[in-house]
Amino acid sequence: MATEKVIEQQMLEHLDSLTKPRGSLGKLEEYALKMAKIQGKVPPRVGKKGIYVFAGDHGIAEEGVSLSPQEVTRQMVTNMIQGGAGINAIGEGAGWEIAVVDAGVKGDGFPDAGPDAKSRLIRAKIVQGSRNFYREPALTAEEVVRAMAWGADLAKDAEDRGYYLVAIGDLGIGNTATAAAMLTAAGFLPEDMVDRGTNIDNAMLDHKRQVVTEAVARWKCPPSDGEAILTKLGSADYAMMAGFILGLEDRGIGCVLDGFPVSSAAYMAYLINPMVLKYLFAGHLSKVRGHGIVLTHMRLEPIVSLDMHLGEGTGAAIGGQIIELALLSALNMASFKSAGVSGGDLQGERY
Amino acid sequence: MATEKVIEQQMLEHLDSLTKPRGSLGKLEEYALKMAKIQGKVPPRVGKKGIYVFAGDHGIAEEGVSLSPQEVTRQMVTNMIQGGAGINAIGEGAGWEIAVVDAGVKGDGFPDAGPDAKSRLIRAKIVQGSRNFYREPALTAEEVVRAMAWGADLAKDAEDRGYYLVAIGDLGIGNTATAAAMLTAAGFLPEDMVDRGTNIDNAMLDHKRQVVTEAVARWKCPPSDGEAILTKLGSADYAMMAGFILGLEDRGIGCVLDGFPVSSAAYMAYLINPMVLKYLFAGHLSKVRGHGIVLTHMRLEPIVSLDMHLGEGTGAAIGGQIIELALLSALNMASFKSAGVSGGDLQGERY
Repeated sequence: MATEKVIEQQMLEHLDSLTKPRGSLGKLEEYALKMAKIQGKVPPRVGKKGIYVFAGDHGIAEEGVSLSPQEVTRQMVTNMIQGGAGINAIGEGAGWEIAVVDAGVKGDGFPDAGPDAKSRLIRAKIVQGSRNFYREPALTAEEVVRAMAWGADLAKDAEDRGYYLVAIGDLGIGNTATAAAMLTAAGFLPEDMVDRGTNIDNAMLDHKRQVVTEAVARWKCPPSDGEAILTKLGSADYAMMAGFILGLEDRGIGCVLDGFPVSSAAYMAYLINPMVLKYLFAGHLSKVRGHGIVLTHMRLEPIVSLDMHLGEGTGAAIGGQIIELALLSALNMASFKSAGVSGGDLQGERY
Repeated sequence: MATEKVIEQQMLEHLDSLTKPRGSLGKLEEYALKMAKIQGKVPPRVGKKGIYVFAGDHGIAEEGVSLSPQEVTRQMVTNMIQGGAGINAIGEGAGWEIAVVDAGVKGDGFPDAGPDAKSRLIRAKIVQGSRNFYREPALTAEEVVRAMAWGADLAKDAEDRGYYLVAIGDLGIGNTATAAAMLTAAGFLPEDMVDRGTNIDNAMLDHKRQVVTEAVARWKCPPSDGEAILTKLGSADYAMMAGFILGLEDRGIGCVLDGFPVSSAAYMAYLINPMVLKYLFAGHLSKVRGHGIVLTHMRLEPIVSLDMHLGEGTGAAIGGQIIELALLSALNMASFKSAGVSGGDLQGERY
């Protein structure tokens, strides 16, 4: 820990040497400081950054908790490969490389899109859709282990590609019901966790809450056992996200979370190893009610709050871009000394 | 107004046709809709965007309301031309072209930096520093007219350069005291408007409040007369900002405000012509207390809130980048129909 203290001290001195009033970049200075600690480097470097969108189907959709048909998961993966999804527009606009991970989409693998592909497809199918946790465990113990290991491999992939920052997105019909079930099993209140996703009506919302509550009661997972919860109430995509987050430890890469589903996977990783908080950022606060509650429990403050609830990593892409701007200011601003600006000692009103 | 209604209807239909749950891009959809109305075009275009940083000295600094020496204004303009200021790092990172406008910096003009210049320098010096409004009017009536006309010329410059979006930044020792005086004259409470900028102590804050309150009482400007307030209590840089904002009318360009000083100039423009609100965006909420109050009066909701208080357009650069991502999603996302995704009619939970 001595090293971390040294980095912190050096980074604070570096930030105060730049041509700006002390502290005037506000949260940006906090993000730059956190990245300095993650990288063990003052000032921290900037380079390529990548989003991983984990896609999977959820058997719980059979219980009528979503409006959309399950085939939409597959159609949206294809849309993402073709470049037409929200994350393509926003992620590319903010300078992210995009990969979509088939962790458990129902049906065959996706055809090779060749040079026309706008997102890299990662074939990591653990299951043909996770099972309906209202009736049986979502995964076997072996499937969870395999999904988490694959996630850890993807953390290595991120390092191999030279990413200094990654973002996590999710895609899959039934994913808010799954996230709500996992978090309820972890001790959060179902009335806080089960939301209408986007546009389901009150009757459907009551039904969704009942399905989640009964399923959680059935499997009796210990509330601090992230792996058990992922097995009984999770899915291959969530287990892979958790394995990805855990696998980032000691790689010097920051990781930006998207909305409620991704944050539920992060919470499972946090239960398994609380040290993950050292390199996690909350990209945004979504409109889903439970999201802020889960982030608060992890003491993660969202970077932006734009009432988004699209998923796919779109909120993470925006928040992560602001982390990058924070690092660029720490890297590229002149110092009082180098620019010959007076008042570095004064930490004055405006300069 | 019929045309605006038609554009609004077309844009809402366009947004709902894209492969996402209805409304799931949250505020981004509002920004895209506002830009469609500004441009009169569905979906609105994206292109180059430019920041104008208006620099000037303020005679009020003689009254001891700032910690930094006045020479810092000049030094920071030079720093900006050389590429070492916060706005260089953040603005370039977010894809903005940067211009710094010498509207009234004390001393000679700046030397030509030639091809090494990292920001374009616009020579528009109206005064050698605005006068100390505690003792005499800041500007003459003729100087205000000239500054505002030059600002309007810069609005044309923005159009000539093909900018679809501009941002406004400010730079100058004494600018929060000036902004507080203008807004107090416009009817806001001095205890809300006079803040410690960054790091002045309580005694200096009391003094600043007294200076502002007495100056406002002395000049008895009608609270809704923006031009009179700019003359008696403003400065060349603020008058030029107000002229710039007013000059953007009917040019189809959106305009992103930075923090408290820029918002005070925008408020003067709003007093002169309330229609400016149609194309103004609040880039961020700064840490300066009065900022949120002024924005609320203009019914502008800040895009981000990151506790920044650096000025120079840094907050506007970040907020404006999010407007661009909103437009890119509206431009580049596939439709349910084109991508063959089910459920466009359902406006479903996740899709």
